[in-house]
Amino acid sequence: MNCLEERILKDGIVKEGNVLKVDSFLNHQMDITLFDEMGKEWKKRFEGKNITKILTIEASGIGIACVVAQHFGVPVVFAKKAKSINLEGEMYTAEVESFTHKNKNQVIVSKKFLQENDRVLLIDDFLANGCALLGLIQIVQAAGATVEGIAIAIEKGFQSGGRIIRNLGYQLESLAIVEEMNCQTGEIVFRKQ
Amino acid sequence: MNCLEERILKDGIVKEGNVLKVDSFLNHQMDITLFDEMGKEWKKRFEGKNITKILTIEASGIGIACVVAQHFGVPVVFAKKAKSINLEGEMYTAEVESFTHKNKNQVIVSKKFLQENDRVLLIDDFLANGCALLGLIQIVQAAGATVEGIAIAIEKGFQSGGRIIRNLGYQLESLAIVEEMNCQTGEIVFRKQ
Repeated sequence: MNCLEERILKDGIVKEGNVLKVDSFLNHQMDITLFDEMGKEWKKRFEGKNITKILTIEASGIGIACVVAQHFGVPVVFAKKAKSINLEGEMYTAEVESFTHKNKNQVIVSKKFLQENDRVLLIDDFLANGCALLGLIQIVQAAGATVEGIAIAIEKGFQSGGRIIRNLGYQLESLAIVEEMNCQTGEIVFRKQ
Repeated sequence: MNCLEERILKDGIVKEGNVLKVDSFLNHQMDITLFDEMGKEWKKRFEGKNITKILTIEASGIGIACVVAQHFGVPVVFAKKAKSINLEGEMYTAEVESFTHKNKNQVIVSKKFLQENDRVLLIDDFLANGCALLGLIQIVQAAGATVEGIAIAIEKGFQSGGRIIRNLGYQLESLAIVEEMNCQTGEIVFRKQ
Protein backbone atom coordinates (compact mmCIF):
# COMPACT_ATOMS: atom_id res chain seq x y z
CA MET A 1 0.00 0.00 0.00
CA ASN A 2 1.49 3.36 -1.02
CA CYS A 3 1.40 6.70 0.81
CA LEU A 4 -1.70 7.95 -0.99
CA GLU A 5 -3.73 4.77 -0.42
CA GLU A 6 -2.82 4.90 3.27
CA ARG A 7 -3.85 8.52 3.49
CA ILE A 8 -7.17 7.89 1.74
CA LEU A 9 -8.00 5.13 4.25
CA LYS A 10 -7.05 7.47 7.09
CA ASP A 11 -8.67 10.73 5.98
CA GLY A 12 -10.85 10.08 2.92
CA ILE A 13 -14.62 10.19 3.45
CA VAL A 14 -17.08 8.25 1.31
CA LYS A 15 -20.22 10.19 0.46
CA GLU A 16 -23.40 9.30 -1.36
CA GLY A 17 -23.30 9.40 -5.15
CA ASN A 18 -19.85 7.81 -5.42
CA VAL A 19 -18.18 10.90 -4.05
CA LEU A 20 -14.85 10.42 -2.26
CA LYS A 21 -13.98 13.49 -0.23
CA VAL A 22 -10.24 14.02 0.05
CA ASP A 23 -10.41 17.75 0.61
CA SER A 24 -8.39 17.63 3.83
CA PHE A 25 -5.18 16.66 2.00
CA LEU A 26 -5.61 16.64 -1.78
CA ASN A 27 -7.88 19.22 -3.35
CA HIS A 28 -8.83 22.00 -0.95
CA GLN A 29 -6.31 21.72 1.85
CA MET A 30 -3.15 20.28 0.30
CA ASP A 31 -0.49 18.20 2.06
CA ILE A 32 2.70 19.20 0.25
CA THR A 33 4.78 16.47 1.89
CA LEU A 34 2.35 13.90 0.50
CA PHE A 35 2.57 15.49 -2.97
CA ASP A 36 6.35 15.19 -2.78
CA GLU A 37 6.06 11.47 -1.93
CA MET A 38 3.66 11.04 -4.86
CA GLY A 39 6.24 12.74 -7.10
CA LYS A 40 8.91 10.25 -6.03
CA GLU A 41 6.62 7.33 -6.83
CA TRP A 42 5.68 8.67 -10.28
CA LYS A 43 9.31 9.42 -11.05
CA LYS A 44 10.00 5.71 -10.49
CA ARG A 45 7.01 4.57 -12.52
CA PHE A 46 7.96 6.77 -15.48
CA GLU A 47 11.65 5.95 -15.31
CA GLY A 48 13.33 6.17 -18.69
CA LYS A 49 10.68 8.51 -20.11
CA ASN A 50 12.14 11.75 -21.35
CA ILE A 51 9.46 14.14 -20.05
CA THR A 52 9.87 17.78 -21.17
CA LYS A 53 6.68 19.29 -19.78
CA ILE A 54 3.83 18.62 -17.38
CA LEU A 55 0.29 19.54 -18.39
CA THR A 56 -2.55 19.72 -15.89
CA ILE A 57 -5.94 21.40 -15.57
CA GLU A 58 -7.15 24.01 -13.13
CA ALA A 59 -7.71 24.05 -10.27
CA SER A 60 -7.06 20.87 -8.26
CA GLY A 61 -4.37 19.52 -10.56
CA ILE A 62 -2.07 22.53 -10.25
CA GLY A 63 -0.68 22.00 -6.76
CA ILE A 64 0.11 18.33 -7.33
CA ALA A 65 1.67 19.07 -10.74
CA CYS A 66 3.92 21.84 -9.41
CA VAL A 67 5.35 19.79 -6.55
CA VAL A 68 5.73 16.69 -8.72
CA ALA A 69 7.45 18.75 -11.45
CA GLN A 70 10.43 19.17 -9.13
CA HIS A 71 11.15 15.45 -9.54
CA PHE A 72 11.14 15.76 -13.32
CA GLY A 73 12.86 19.15 -13.60
CA VAL A 74 10.35 20.51 -16.11
CA PRO A 75 7.89 23.42 -16.30
CA VAL A 76 4.15 22.98 -15.71
CA VAL A 77 1.39 24.30 -17.95
CA PHE A 78 -2.18 24.33 -16.73
CA ALA A 79 -5.19 24.30 -19.02
CA LYS A 80 -7.47 27.20 -18.13
CA LYS A 81 -11.21 26.88 -17.80
CA ALA A 82 -12.33 30.27 -19.04
CA LYS A 83 -11.16 32.82 -21.55
CA SER A 84 -9.12 35.55 -19.90
CA ILE A 85 -8.36 38.93 -21.42
CA ASN A 86 -4.73 38.11 -20.62
CA LEU A 87 -4.72 34.97 -22.72
CA GLU A 88 -4.90 36.38 -26.20
CA GLY A 89 -3.44 34.94 -29.36
CA GLU A 90 -3.87 31.47 -30.64
CA MET A 91 -4.73 28.65 -28.31
CA TYR A 92 -5.63 25.00 -28.31
CA THR A 93 -9.11 24.27 -26.97
CA ALA A 94 -11.09 21.25 -25.83
CA GLU A 95 -14.48 20.78 -24.24
CA VAL A 96 -14.46 19.08 -20.85
CA GLU A 97 -17.37 17.91 -18.73
CA SER A 98 -16.92 17.96 -14.96
CA PHE A 99 -18.20 15.00 -12.96
CA THR A 100 -18.05 17.05 -9.76
CA HIS A 101 -19.66 20.23 -11.00
CA LYS A 102 -22.02 18.69 -13.58
CA ASN A 103 -21.16 21.30 -16.16
CA LYS A 104 -19.15 21.72 -19.35
CA ASN A 105 -16.10 23.91 -19.68
CA GLN A 106 -14.02 25.00 -22.59
CA VAL A 107 -10.40 24.47 -21.56
CA ILE A 108 -7.62 26.32 -23.32
CA VAL A 109 -3.85 26.20 -23.58
CA SER A 110 -1.81 28.87 -25.31
CA LYS A 111 -0.07 27.50 -28.42
CA LYS A 112 3.16 29.14 -27.23
CA PHE A 113 3.54 26.61 -24.43
CA LEU A 114 3.22 23.30 -26.28
CA GLN A 115 5.70 22.48 -29.04
CA GLU A 116 5.88 19.61 -31.49
CA ASN A 117 8.93 18.16 -29.74
CA ASP A 118 7.34 18.25 -26.26
CA ARG A 119 7.00 14.92 -24.45
CA VAL A 120 4.20 15.58 -22.04
CA LEU A 121 3.25 14.05 -18.70
CA LEU A 122 -0.43 14.69 -17.90
CA ILE A 123 -1.29 15.05 -14.20
CA ASP A 124 -4.65 15.31 -12.48
CA ASP A 125 -6.14 14.59 -9.07
CA PHE A 126 -9.08 12.39 -10.15
CA LEU A 127 -9.94 10.12 -13.05
CA ALA A 128 -13.60 9.11 -13.31
CA ASN A 129 -15.18 9.15 -16.77
CA GLY A 130 -11.99 10.44 -18.35
CA CYS A 131 -13.45 13.57 -19.94
CA ALA A 132 -10.84 15.95 -18.56
CA LEU A 133 -7.97 13.67 -19.61
CA LEU A 134 -9.38 13.15 -23.09
CA GLY A 135 -9.55 16.93 -23.43
CA LEU A 136 -5.90 17.28 -22.40
CA ILE A 137 -4.85 14.48 -24.77
CA GLN A 138 -6.70 16.24 -27.59
CA ILE A 139 -4.79 19.45 -26.84
CA VAL A 140 -1.41 17.68 -26.81
CA GLN A 141 -2.23 15.98 -30.10
CA ALA A 142 -3.35 19.26 -31.67
CA ALA A 143 0.11 20.63 -30.82
CA GLY A 144 1.76 17.65 -32.52
CA ALA A 145 3.40 16.81 -29.20
CA THR A 146 3.53 13.38 -27.53
CA VAL A 147 1.69 12.15 -24.42
CA GLU A 148 4.52 10.32 -22.68
CA GLY A 149 2.46 9.24 -19.68
CA ILE A 150 -0.49 10.03 -17.45
CA ALA A 151 -0.22 10.44 -13.68
CA ILE A 152 -3.46 10.32 -11.70
CA ALA A 153 -3.77 10.51 -7.95
CA ILE A 154 -7.12 8.72 -7.51
CA GLU A 155 -8.82 6.65 -10.19
CA LYS A 156 -12.40 5.51 -9.72
CA GLY A 157 -11.91 1.99 -11.01
CA PHE A 158 -15.65 1.39 -11.25
CA GLN A 159 -16.04 4.17 -13.83
CA SER A 160 -14.96 3.84 -17.44
CA GLY A 161 -12.21 6.47 -17.72
CA GLY A 162 -9.26 4.26 -16.78
CA ARG A 163 -10.27 1.49 -19.17
CA ILE A 164 -10.80 3.94 -22.04
CA ILE A 165 -7.42 5.61 -21.50
CA ARG A 166 -5.51 2.29 -21.16
CA ASN A 167 -7.24 0.92 -24.26
CA LEU A 168 -5.91 3.91 -26.17
CA GLY A 169 -2.43 2.62 -25.33
CA TYR A 170 -1.29 5.24 -22.82
CA GLN A 171 0.82 4.47 -19.76
CA LEU A 172 -1.64 5.50 -17.06
CA GLU A 173 -0.28 5.41 -13.52
CA SER A 174 -2.96 5.94 -10.89
CA LEU A 175 -1.53 5.85 -7.39
CA ALA A 176 -4.84 4.71 -5.89
CA ILE A 177 -7.50 2.86 -7.85
CA VAL A 178 -10.75 2.65 -5.91
CA GLU A 179 -12.63 -0.53 -6.86
CA GLU A 180 -15.52 -0.12 -4.45
CA MET A 181 -16.58 2.26 -1.76
CA ASN A 182 -19.50 2.18 0.60
CA CYS A 183 -20.99 5.36 1.99
CA GLN A 184 -22.83 3.43 4.73
CA THR A 185 -19.81 1.65 6.19
CA GLY A 186 -17.12 4.04 4.90
CA GLU A 187 -15.24 1.06 3.48
CA ILE A 188 -12.88 1.67 0.55
CA VAL A 189 -11.39 -1.19 -1.49
CA PHE A 190 -8.36 -0.53 -3.73
CA ARG A 191 -7.35 -2.50 -6.79
CA LYS A 192 -4.17 -4.50 -6.11
CA GLN A 193 -1.27 -3.00 -8.07
CA MET B 1 17.34 43.10 -8.42
CA ASN B 2 15.86 39.73 -7.41
CA CYS B 3 15.15 36.65 -9.54
CA LEU B 4 11.54 37.62 -10.25
CA GLU B 5 12.34 41.20 -11.30
CA GLU B 6 15.04 39.89 -13.63
CA ARG B 7 12.64 37.40 -15.14
CA ILE B 8 9.92 40.01 -15.65
CA LEU B 9 12.40 42.23 -17.54
CA LYS B 10 13.44 39.25 -19.65
CA ASP B 11 10.08 37.62 -20.40
CA GLY B 12 7.27 39.91 -19.22
CA ILE B 13 5.27 41.69 -21.91
CA VAL B 14 3.53 45.02 -21.34
CA LYS B 15 0.11 45.23 -22.96
CA GLU B 16 -2.43 48.02 -23.28
CA GLY B 17 -4.71 48.65 -20.31
CA ASN B 18 -1.96 48.18 -17.72
CA VAL B 19 -1.75 44.46 -18.39
CA LEU B 20 1.57 42.76 -17.66
CA LYS B 21 1.70 39.36 -19.33
CA VAL B 22 3.83 36.88 -17.40
CA ASP B 23 2.11 33.78 -18.68
CA SER B 24 5.32 32.17 -19.93
CA PHE B 25 6.67 31.66 -16.39
CA LEU B 26 4.14 32.65 -13.71
CA ASN B 27 0.48 32.01 -14.37
CA HIS B 28 -0.11 29.73 -17.35
CA GLN B 29 3.23 28.09 -17.95
CA MET B 30 4.96 27.93 -14.56
CA ASP B 31 8.71 27.89 -13.91
CA ILE B 32 9.00 25.74 -10.81
CA THR B 33 12.68 26.59 -10.27
CA LEU B 34 11.74 30.27 -10.15
CA PHE B 35 8.93 29.52 -7.65
CA ASP B 36 11.48 27.74 -5.48
CA GLU B 37 13.78 30.81 -5.55
CA MET B 38 10.80 32.99 -4.64
CA GLY B 39 10.12 30.68 -1.71
CA LYS B 40 13.67 31.12 -0.44
CA GLU B 41 13.35 34.90 -0.64
CA TRP B 42 10.00 34.96 1.22
CA LYS B 43 11.33 32.57 3.85
CA LYS B 44 14.05 35.18 4.57
CA ARG B 45 11.63 38.10 4.57
CA PHE B 46 9.25 36.37 6.98
CA GLU B 47 12.00 35.07 9.24
CA GLY B 48 10.86 34.67 12.83
CA LYS B 49 7.20 34.41 11.88
CA ASN B 50 5.61 31.22 13.08
CA ILE B 51 3.52 30.39 9.98
CA THR B 52 1.17 27.39 10.38
CA LYS B 53 -0.72 27.54 7.09
CA ILE B 54 -0.62 29.13 3.65
CA LEU B 55 -3.85 30.43 2.13
CA THR B 56 -4.13 31.28 -1.57
CA ILE B 57 -6.87 31.60 -4.17
CA GLU B 58 -7.49 29.60 -7.31
CA ALA B 59 -6.13 29.29 -9.87
CA SER B 60 -2.86 31.18 -10.42
CA GLY B 61 -1.91 31.34 -6.74
CA ILE B 62 -1.94 27.58 -6.20
CA GLY B 63 1.28 26.59 -7.96
CA ILE B 64 3.34 29.32 -6.31
CA ALA B 65 1.83 28.57 -2.89
CA CYS B 66 2.54 24.83 -3.10
CA VAL B 67 6.19 25.20 -4.06
CA VAL B 68 6.75 28.00 -1.53
CA ALA B 69 5.05 25.93 1.20
CA GLN B 70 8.02 23.55 1.12
CA HIS B 71 10.16 26.33 2.60
CA PHE B 72 7.72 26.83 5.46
CA GLY B 73 6.80 23.17 6.04
CA VAL B 74 3.07 23.87 6.20
CA PRO B 75 -0.06 22.81 4.29
CA VAL B 76 -1.72 25.02 1.69
CA VAL B 77 -5.42 25.82 1.50
CA PHE B 78 -6.83 27.43 -1.60
CA ALA B 79 -10.01 29.51 -1.64
CA LYS B 80 -12.38 28.14 -4.26
CA LYS B 81 -14.27 30.31 -6.69
CA ALA B 82 -17.49 28.34 -7.05
CA LYS B 83 -19.59 26.11 -4.91
CA SER B 84 -18.79 22.46 -5.51
CA ILE B 85 -21.03 19.54 -4.58
CA ASN B 86 -17.94 18.13 -2.85
CA LEU B 87 -17.54 21.16 -0.62
CA GLU B 88 -20.48 20.78 1.69
CA GLY B 89 -20.77 21.85 5.28
CA GLU B 90 -19.98 25.18 6.73
CA MET B 91 -17.63 27.52 4.96
CA TYR B 92 -16.23 31.01 5.16
CA THR B 93 -17.12 33.17 2.18
CA ALA B 94 -16.04 36.49 0.71
CA GLU B 95 -16.86 38.35 -2.48
CA VAL B 96 -13.93 39.08 -4.75
CA GLU B 97 -13.78 41.17 -7.91
CA SER B 98 -11.26 40.14 -10.55
CA PHE B 99 -9.26 42.88 -12.30
CA THR B 100 -8.34 40.47 -15.10
CA HIS B 101 -11.72 38.93 -15.74
CA LYS B 102 -13.86 41.96 -14.83
CA ASN B 103 -16.28 39.86 -12.82
CA LYS B 104 -17.21 39.07 -9.24
CA ASN B 105 -16.75 35.71 -7.60
CA GLN B 106 -17.82 34.29 -4.32
CA VAL B 107 -14.75 32.62 -2.82
CA ILE B 108 -15.11 29.96 -0.16
CA VAL B 109 -12.95 28.14 2.34
CA SER B 110 -14.18 25.19 4.37
CA LYS B 111 -14.27 26.02 8.09
CA LYS B 112 -12.48 22.73 8.77
CA PHE B 113 -9.24 24.07 7.35
CA LEU B 114 -8.80 27.34 9.24
CA GLN B 115 -8.54 27.26 13.02
CA GLU B 116 -8.39 30.02 15.60
CA ASN B 117 -4.74 29.26 16.36
CA ASP B 118 -3.65 29.34 12.71
CA ARG B 119 -1.02 31.91 11.75
CA VAL B 120 -1.60 32.36 8.07
CA LEU B 121 0.64 33.46 5.22
CA LEU B 122 -1.42 34.71 2.27
CA ILE B 123 0.09 34.14 -1.18
CA ASP B 124 -1.03 35.35 -4.60
CA ASP B 125 0.51 36.05 -7.98
CA PHE B 126 -0.75 39.63 -8.48
CA LEU B 127 -1.81 42.55 -6.30
CA ALA B 128 -3.63 45.36 -8.11
CA ASN B 129 -6.67 46.84 -6.40
CA GLY B 130 -6.39 44.40 -3.49
CA CYS B 131 -9.88 42.90 -3.75
CA ALA B 132 -8.72 39.29 -3.73
CA LEU B 133 -6.43 39.87 -0.73
CA LEU B 134 -9.10 41.72 1.22
CA GLY B 135 -11.39 38.76 0.62
CA LEU B 136 -8.78 36.34 1.95
CA ILE B 137 -8.09 38.57 4.97
CA GLN B 138 -11.82 38.66 5.70
CA ILE B 139 -11.91 34.85 5.63
CA VAL B 140 -8.93 34.52 8.00
CA GLN B 141 -10.51 37.01 10.38
CA ALA B 142 -13.85 35.21 10.28
CA ALA B 143 -11.98 32.09 11.42
CA GLY B 144 -10.46 34.01 14.32
CA ALA B 145 -7.02 33.19 12.89
CA THR B 146 -4.14 35.63 12.35
CA VAL B 147 -2.72 37.00 9.09
CA GLU B 148 0.99 36.67 9.80
CA GLY B 149 2.12 38.05 6.47
CA ILE B 150 1.28 38.50 2.80
CA ALA B 151 3.49 37.28 -0.04
CA ILE B 152 2.79 38.69 -3.49
CA ALA B 153 4.76 37.95 -6.63
CA ILE B 154 3.95 41.11 -8.62
CA GLU B 155 2.40 44.26 -7.16
CA LYS B 156 1.14 46.99 -9.45
CA GLY B 157 2.52 49.90 -7.46
CA PHE B 158 0.44 52.40 -9.42
CA GLN B 159 -2.81 50.83 -8.19
CA SER B 160 -4.14 51.23 -4.68
CA GLY B 161 -4.04 47.67 -3.33
CA GLY B 162 -0.54 47.76 -1.86
CA ARG B 163 -1.13 51.06 -0.06
CA ILE B 164 -4.47 49.89 1.36
CA ILE B 165 -2.99 46.61 2.64
CA ARG B 166 0.12 48.27 4.17
CA ASN B 167 -2.07 50.93 5.81
CA LEU B 168 -3.99 48.14 7.50
CA GLY B 169 -0.70 47.20 9.18
CA TYR B 170 0.09 43.95 7.41
CA GLN B 171 3.61 42.88 6.47
CA LEU B 172 3.21 42.78 2.71
CA GLU B 173 6.20 41.44 0.79
CA SER B 174 5.87 41.88 -2.97
CA LEU B 175 8.89 40.51 -4.81
CA ALA B 176 8.40 42.91 -7.72
CA ILE B 177 6.60 46.24 -7.44
CA VAL B 178 5.93 47.74 -10.84
CA GLU B 179 5.90 51.54 -10.61
CA GLU B 180 5.41 52.25 -14.28
CA MET B 181 5.13 50.33 -17.47
CA ASN B 182 4.84 51.47 -21.04
CA CYS B 183 3.11 49.35 -23.65
CA GLN B 184 4.68 51.38 -26.50
CA THR B 185 8.31 50.96 -25.45
CA GLY B 186 7.88 47.82 -23.33
CA GLU B 187 9.71 49.56 -20.49
CA ILE B 188 9.05 48.39 -16.94
CA VAL B 189 10.21 50.37 -13.88
CA PHE B 190 10.35 48.67 -10.48
CA ARG B 191 10.16 50.38 -7.09
CA LYS B 192 13.52 50.22 -5.31
CA GLN B 193 13.33 47.83 -2.35
